[in-house]
Amino acid sequence: MNELIRLSASEAVARLKAGDVTPLDLIDAAAGQIAAADGAVNALPTLCLDRARDHAKRLKHPDDPPPGYLWGLPVAIKDLTEVAGVRTTFGSTIFADHVPERSDAMVERIEGRGGVVVAKANTPEFGAGAQTFNEVSGVTRNPWNTAMTPGGSSGGSAVALATGQVWLAQGSDMGGSLRIPASFTGVVGLRPSPGRVPHGPSALPFLPNSVEGPMGRTVGDVALFLDTMAGHMAVDPISLPAPATSFAAAAANARPPKRIAFSMDMGISPIHRDVRAAVEPALAHFRAMGTEIVESAVDFSCAEPVFQVIRAAQFAATHGDKLKTHRDQLKPEMVWNIEKGLALTADEIGRAERQRADLFQRFQAQFADIDLFVTPTVNTPPFDADTRYLEELEGVAFDSYISWLIMTFALTLTTCPAISVPCGFTTGGLPVGLQLVGPQRGEAALLAGAAVFEQATGLAGATPIMPREPVA
Amino acid sequence: MNELIRLSASEAVARLKAGDVTPLDLIDAAAGQIAAADGAVNALPTLCLDRARDHAKRLKHPDDPPPGYLWGLPVAIKDLTEVAGVRTTFGSTIFADHVPERSDAMVERIEGRGGVVVAKANTPEFGAGAQTFNEVSGVTRNPWNTAMTPGGSSGGSAVALATGQVWLAQGSDMGGSLRIPASFTGVVGLRPSPGRVPHGPSALPFLPNSVEGPMGRTVGDVALFLDTMAGHMAVDPISLPAPATSFAAAAANARPPKRIAFSMDMGISPIHRDVRAAVEPALAHFRAMGTEIVESAVDFSCAEPVFQVIRAAQFAATHGDKLKTHRDQLKPEMVWNIEKGLALTADEIGRAERQRADLFQRFQAQFADIDLFVTPTVNTPPFDADTRYLEELEGVAFDSYISWLIMTFALTLTTCPAISVPCGFTTGGLPVGLQLVGPQRGEAALLAGAAVFEQATGLAGATPIMPREPVA
Repeated sequence: MNELIRLSASEAVARLKAGDVTPLDLIDAAAGQIAAADGAVNALPTLCLDRARDHAKRLKHPDDPPPGYLWGLPVAIKDLTEVAGVRTTFGSTIFADHVPERSDAMVERIEGRGGVVVAKANTPEFGAGAQTFNEVSGVTRNPWNTAMTPGGSSGGSAVALATGQVWLAQGSDMGGSLRIPASFTGVVGLRPSPGRVPHGPSALPFLPNSVEGPMGRTVGDVALFLDTMAGHMAVDPISLPAPATSFAAAAANARPPKRIAFSMDMGISPIHRDVRAAVEPALAHFRAMGTEIVESAVDFSCAEPVFQVIRAAQFAATHGDKLKTHRDQLKPEMVWNIEKGLALTADEIGRAERQRADLFQRFQAQFADIDLFVTPTVNTPPFDADTRYLEELEGVAFDSYISWLIMTFALTLTTCPAISVPCGFTTGGLPVGLQLVGPQRGEAALLAGAAVFEQATGLAGATPIMPREPVA
Repeated sequence: MNELIRLSASEAVARLKAGDVTPLDLIDAAAGQIAAADGAVNALPTLCLDRARDHAKRLKHPDDPPPGYLWGLPVAIKDLTEVAGVRTTFGSTIFADHVPERSDAMVERIEGRGGVVVAKANTPEFGAGAQTFNEVSGVTRNPWNTAMTPGGSSGGSAVALATGQVWLAQGSDMGGSLRIPASFTGVVGLRPSPGRVPHGPSALPFLPNSVEGPMGRTVGDVALFLDTMAGHMAVDPISLPAPATSFAAAAANARPPKRIAFSMDMGISPIHRDVRAAVEPALAHFRAMGTEIVESAVDFSCAEPVFQVIRAAQFAATHGDKLKTHRDQLKPEMVWNIEKGLALTADEIGRAERQRADLFQRFQAQFADIDLFVTPTVNTPPFDADTRYLEELEGVAFDSYISWLIMTFALTLTTCPAISVPCGFTTGGLPVGLQLVGPQRGEAALLAGAAVFEQATGLAGATPIMPREPVA
């Protein structure tokens, strides 16, 4: 493994800025690691190395670069987002040959701030489901055990990071798609507040459910990439102004939270014994730094019915037309979700939105007394890569292909920022993540808390792994 | 008329700050003017003068007050917003005796920044329709001709300002409710960007359709009150941070726009000849200050069908339950709008949202070449106070009770800030307003443009009028 591969993104950017390495050096290092590692995991099905080298040669660095400026660092973009001149499939055979002329505004922002796109990262069909397989590019595998799934839908991004193919990767998250694959692969994924990362033009730009966000191998790297992405863009009507203090500075200012609310299951989910076993000792790190841990009293019982309605309505609005024009090219889970949405009444949609608003207020109110809300990121460790979705856990049957994501989608409904940070391993050596949630727009405090936890565990770091065959 | 009544809000606040007058002096002046003027117009059906005097006596001014701090200035709150301990009817007999225990967060913010609530301003039932009558408090009348309507739904707020009963009044706007009554009564009403004015807790806090905002007799006063209201509050998940420079400073920095796009009818509305006659010469003010005027090329043909769906869906979500519990206490227009919403399919709602997103992008794009978009605020001058809504105009029949609001609701869909500023009078002496629209979140530029137009016309000012009987 090239020594450049082992650098954190923050270290790599510092070397680029200092002129110790060039963007072309890093593109070559990435290309070498992709060649060495990706065959076994299939994280980056579409490469754009020539385009990346052209871009790197044309880079002109500004005199006064903004926070998060990347100085030519290679990055991966999830294949749900358009990159000009690069095949963007959305994981669907409908778009198997789609090459957009123009990039999404988020990509323009990242490239405008010195990021160099080297590859598109695999995703399930239209991002539906927290697995990563599709009919165009196949199955993405977990490098800790290639028989297992890395989760999804940002599975390609997570695996590319875990295996050192890139230093930073972009993901997106409606029901947990930035957090679940981070948890399953031992990297860090941040679901920001709606509007924190501008993107578009999108079909439903006012909805707070699907967000874009950063993934990296450390909390500091994720904070750096959030700086790259953040700040108002007119194309995104809910986008927020950049904060006065950078997120990287917030993460560097790691400090123990005074008090956190913890819930192992939020009262709504079965939890696999291996997850319990990995998460419980992690809480000791907080106790050791003097953090008080209280049990959360928030009632999440509305989370599944409300999320199912909000998601289905969004699927109907986004993909409804495809049911007419390309039904035979949609996977059964997509058809089910769109049809569920099309069957909703305005009364059902309105009632779900009102219940979500109520949950938002109840969840937000607890931050008067706590700094962070903490749960396991996922209720299960990584499972078989050929399983489309989890149908039961600990004897509890799930109703739908997304029901097993309840630990993450329940927090989506709150619109609060949430991060998954590595917290331990199963007895089988598979990563387990801890989900930390901050108050509305509270990414700075969230990153500070995540950084101090990362320091305490000593688990997160810059060291990527090579894909590992299943142990018999 | 007490000389204090003639002050602008900005002047009154300056005198309060200097200690030349006290909040109690201004409450007494307001009470006197309410007693003298409100009988003929019925703008402020609920007074809370004792509560106001108690509040004024308890005021403790901060050492370093924020922008928009009001130093004890009396204000009126629209009767759609709860004020603790004061009857809040929403214009509905269902809530005829409703006295909330807690104020809306917006009221807490205004009171926390030195505003003193003296009255609740009349509104139609649940704000539905751009008229101002209801079964609890009766009809509000236009002071320029008390046979005429002041428009609505912030009609009570507009009339209270026009007649000098208060110096500032709060309003709200989904289809034009801050802009239409401002146009009809010769005052200024600003519909801000969604999230600019935090409020709540509300039932549907993520929707960008209904917003709260400031009304005043001058652009500067409206800017001052926007400063009072603006800045993030956790209760409102889409609320924006306060800007680095105050809106009052932006309005004081009045400067001519370089180029504006004008449309008399946006290609979608009949326009009354008196409105044309008042608006056309107003454009000369822009030409005289060197502003280039181009014809807008934005296609608004989707505006009515899209707004009808979005509004109906919101009515169903907000008021659907009332149809079951209190149908006989809802006016026919409310029943029609809720039933229309309950009959919508998820596909219709999703399609409308996608079309709105497209209109947003097309409208926003033009600001690369222009500073402001300009139209008449309303297609008609004020009409009879006993007419529930306009059924036809210039030979064109309207389909519904809200169709005549098309000049304002078409801009609501863009989520851009829009202000109505007085621009002239009909031959019958009734006010006509000009609607200026800025880019997304562009309240500062919008206020600067509105202020320079106000200076050019010489129409807006601090001088309130006493209610005028109809001329035979």
